[in-house]
Amino acid sequence: MTDYKAPVRDIKFVRDEVFDFPALWQDLPGCEEASPDLVEAILEAMATFCEEELAPLNQSGDAEGCNWTDGVVTTPAGFKEAYKKYAESGWPGLTSPEAFGGQALPPSMESILNEFAGSANWAWSMYPFLAKGARATIIAHGTKDLIEGYIPKMVAGDWTGTMCLTEAHCGTDLGMLRTKAEPNAEGSYALSGSKIFISAGDHDLVENVIHIVIARIPDSPPGTKGISLILVPKNLPDADGNLQPNGVSCGSIEHKMGIHGNATCVINFDGAKGFLLGEVNRGLNCMFTFMNTARVGTAIQGISHGEIALQGATKYARERLQMRSLSGPKNPDGPADPIIVHPDVRRMLLTIKALTEGNRLLIHYLSSYLDITRLSEDEAACSQAEDLLGLLTPIAKGFITETGFECANHGVQVFGGHGYISEWGMEQNVRDSRIAMIYEGTNGIQALDLLGRKVLGSQGKLLEGFINEIKTWSEQSSDSTIKAERIGALGEAVAQWAKLSQEVGMKAMTNPEEVGAASFDYLMYSGYVTLAYLWLRAAEVAEQKLQGGSEESDFYTAKLETTRFYFDRILPRIHTLAATIRVGADSLMTMDEQRFVVGLEIS
Amino acid sequence: MTDYKAPVRDIKFVRDEVFDFPALWQDLPGCEEASPDLVEAILEAMATFCEEELAPLNQSGDAEGCNWTDGVVTTPAGFKEAYKKYAESGWPGLTSPEAFGGQALPPSMESILNEFAGSANWAWSMYPFLAKGARATIIAHGTKDLIEGYIPKMVAGDWTGTMCLTEAHCGTDLGMLRTKAEPNAEGSYALSGSKIFISAGDHDLVENVIHIVIARIPDSPPGTKGISLILVPKNLPDADGNLQPNGVSCGSIEHKMGIHGNATCVINFDGAKGFLLGEVNRGLNCMFTFMNTARVGTAIQGISHGEIALQGATKYARERLQMRSLSGPKNPDGPADPIIVHPDVRRMLLTIKALTEGNRLLIHYLSSYLDITRLSEDEAACSQAEDLLGLLTPIAKGFITETGFECANHGVQVFGGHGYISEWGMEQNVRDSRIAMIYEGTNGIQALDLLGRKVLGSQGKLLEGFINEIKTWSEQSSDSTIKAERIGALGEAVAQWAKLSQEVGMKAMTNPEEVGAASFDYLMYSGYVTLAYLWLRAAEVAEQKLQGGSEESDFYTAKLETTRFYFDRILPRIHTLAATIRVGADSLMTMDEQRFVVGLEIS
Repeated sequence: MTDYKAPVRDIKFVRDEVFDFPALWQDLPGCEEASPDLVEAILEAMATFCEEELAPLNQSGDAEGCNWTDGVVTTPAGFKEAYKKYAESGWPGLTSPEAFGGQALPPSMESILNEFAGSANWAWSMYPFLAKGARATIIAHGTKDLIEGYIPKMVAGDWTGTMCLTEAHCGTDLGMLRTKAEPNAEGSYALSGSKIFISAGDHDLVENVIHIVIARIPDSPPGTKGISLILVPKNLPDADGNLQPNGVSCGSIEHKMGIHGNATCVINFDGAKGFLLGEVNRGLNCMFTFMNTARVGTAIQGISHGEIALQGATKYARERLQMRSLSGPKNPDGPADPIIVHPDVRRMLLTIKALTEGNRLLIHYLSSYLDITRLSEDEAACSQAEDLLGLLTPIAKGFITETGFECANHGVQVFGGHGYISEWGMEQNVRDSRIAMIYEGTNGIQALDLLGRKVLGSQGKLLEGFINEIKTWSEQSSDSTIKAERIGALGEAVAQWAKLSQEVGMKAMTNPEEVGAASFDYLMYSGYVTLAYLWLRAAEVAEQKLQGGSEESDFYTAKLETTRFYFDRILPRIHTLAATIRVGADSLMTMDEQRFVVGLEIS
Repeated sequence: MTDYKAPVRDIKFVRDEVFDFPALWQDLPGCEEASPDLVEAILEAMATFCEEELAPLNQSGDAEGCNWTDGVVTTPAGFKEAYKKYAESGWPGLTSPEAFGGQALPPSMESILNEFAGSANWAWSMYPFLAKGARATIIAHGTKDLIEGYIPKMVAGDWTGTMCLTEAHCGTDLGMLRTKAEPNAEGSYALSGSKIFISAGDHDLVENVIHIVIARIPDSPPGTKGISLILVPKNLPDADGNLQPNGVSCGSIEHKMGIHGNATCVINFDGAKGFLLGEVNRGLNCMFTFMNTARVGTAIQGISHGEIALQGATKYARERLQMRSLSGPKNPDGPADPIIVHPDVRRMLLTIKALTEGNRLLIHYLSSYLDITRLSEDEAACSQAEDLLGLLTPIAKGFITETGFECANHGVQVFGGHGYISEWGMEQNVRDSRIAMIYEGTNGIQALDLLGRKVLGSQGKLLEGFINEIKTWSEQSSDSTIKAERIGALGEAVAQWAKLSQEVGMKAMTNPEEVGAASFDYLMYSGYVTLAYLWLRAAEVAEQKLQGGSEESDFYTAKLETTRFYFDRILPRIHTLAATIRVGADSLMTMDEQRFVVGLEIS
């Protein structure tokens, strides 16, 4: 079993030292209360809760899984008690408005809780995190009555929530959905239909689950233009506030690769009473409130699993004695050297470290813009932040979950045979991490969103904005050695990014398949360049601290070394990506369907 | 569930058309019986057995797993009956000498059985395949008495076998082993100690398991020079041939990520009677008979899982309707287009196809040299074949298992959310495939073997031999369009391979860590170049068939298209690898141990 320790120090480095959240918050209305002392205390409390209450249930939750019997879903032992403590400690209301009982902290604080709780126990963490997205959607699109009727209970953690999109025949292609919402006389709707893959869809942690459901109201246009968003509680509060069954039931739960502690439900609606959120037929737009929150949350999953891999594999590599160093014994009194001396083990550990800490930089960089869009009253700043969020969200979701899975796999490999055995927690980490590349829009969909909608759809404007920021920073005078050393590589990678975008854009004008042919590799390219920029910013800060005589020499030196490793060993992945982006759609598109498998009756 | 169909047509293409096994066998003694008709009949029988008997037990075997109760291991339902049919059909003796009841077919035939059975049910296939390695080791190193006493029973499939290397404190570093073999008066040995991670170590398929154990005889030198190889039966045949318990017991079985149907055992030896194989203290050398067989077998695991991903994901992508093609509807009468029209889905499917079919080329290319070393009486040919096998075995084991895991993961991704659900078989395919990168020597160890021992250890001779073969073929005049089109890219990749080898060799003379720093990426580079060569050979053949008016136009056209895809989209991975091989050891080796994780008490 891996003991998890929340990386509080690194969070403070990233937020306070690299991105200067304290300065950012000084200018944001509503952040007056968020003093560094308060944030420090919250970080420590989060860490303690996640380390002591959630992490011990991670492996047992995986082994036990959820149970479905006659429509009743039971979570693994201890989950309910941990959730009770979570709610009692006020964590569900961390960033919710004070009017509803929340603590009204800036939204970026959720990114920390999300990572810590997710590392400690991703399956458990999905119950409260889906509730968070549901709350945000109701607050954004609900009527006053709905907000007052549902939000206080959700902020208190008494009720959780879900996002009900997928049906058996449609996941990505939501325009095909069949769930119906028929108007009732008094303005509510009667929902009927069946949704699948509903994470945290039903469980025994709380008395009520509030489903945010996309459905079709009769006579709506076909496709995505005829989708409405409906709030459907599992249990309906009556006039006295007592909960009454509402025709919502869990038909079954899925057996799956990982996140066994989270119930993935078939949810059936049989004339369930629901309430419109937003306007009729504008459901998909409203749902994006939920989806954007959920995409950032899912991106963080990559960091959560990367951190588990880093801590587990580093501990193991320091302790496990096997073979001698090629350059002579490093542990001459022992029977062998710790495997951390071997370059190939270091390659894996440093890859985990460079990607995970780099991904953490990306999430908090992005989260700083989340705070601006949510809190700033400066319209220009908000607009610029929205642009950056639009660009960076699909990069974060796609890139961080891909590299998080990679890191989880390196974690297994460092352990050798022991990595494959359940006892050590590394194989669960792989299984749990795998879903992040799929849900909240597969990474293929993120890639299309990035290249098709965000980059080309804005005629390059969104990308240009970000590239200009990188250029501005690059041109700032600095006495940083590492910046001088690596700025050329960053500049080349960025210039090529712009060029590749133009090239694909030109080709797409004559062949629309070129976008889909390039998109996934383009997303990964974007991620590697973005991390190179952020690592170099972090390294410059670390160097300044060392020059200033910091006592944390190991911490800051590691940042410089990891940056060098990143530029030496990770950033060169763009060479291949540039080639495969440029090669175009031809060799993807020529093969006829029947030629993918020839001569075998597989269908 | 994925219905598996054995790719008989592709095996025939690879073996008969690309590598011309019939011509090879004409010159090999002992292959006289192996007529094309016989081979065809065997292929069909293998396919039928694997499709009908093994595949149906794959998912149920995973779900049920093995059971250990009071030292008794029970395999999943149906495994025993399938094994009985397997043995009765004579499959254990496919390539064993006729003198022991075998059919004496060339060893490369095992590579086919290995793939088909492995695709159908990898966990099951490990029981007979480990027995195969044990048999080969006994035949190579056993006394006449041991061979006569054990081999006929093993060829008949009445007894299986294992390889007992790992102990709790040593896996890669076998020199640290503690299991003792104390001489008995009559020349046998009394074994005591405990081995872990023994695949197929105990089970209910047969009445006896023959363990091939490495152990230390008293007063042997320390380290790897004091290791001896001992045959230790679970049950000892007495003078009448009745089996008596021999102090060998299964202490427990592991809970692991995948291959649940195969028992991974702790095997305890308590004064068990054993018999020396080979010479005292030469055990590790003798064990390599087993290891080399096992490494090729493990390499094939990557093909097995890749083929499952290809068949499953292709079928799904043809049937699943989601979204419209960016270049206009392809299924205008349906509610959406099949996802196989989308370029990003094609990217994943073609990656699986190019890697899996390419890996199959590599295995049978390698297997042709296996046949030569085992059967040829031409010393020069044997020596050349040994050299190529030495070079290609670690490439095959490392590269094919890495890319096999990649393919299994693409299989999940094509299915979207359904890929993560157990029902469809894709997630099991990932879990089962993951172990192949670890066992039989982790891929990091394969990489060191390749670069350190094989390439640099031979002063480049082994690599030069292979490169010369590629050059010779490249220079052969040909009217092949695709060869003309891609030979330049192959030539550049090969030239760079030679250059990179020299560069690392030069650097290693001053810093031995350079080998370990480059080795893994070097192994992957080697794999991509090797597949490029073999794909181009295959494409040339396919083109000839099309020019000759073949009626199998889809089959051969797909080979050309997949080759183009491979050169366009897969081979460019060498650009990154060349950069990371060249960058050297510095940024890997500078970080002090304590800096990998700073400020958290993880140990």
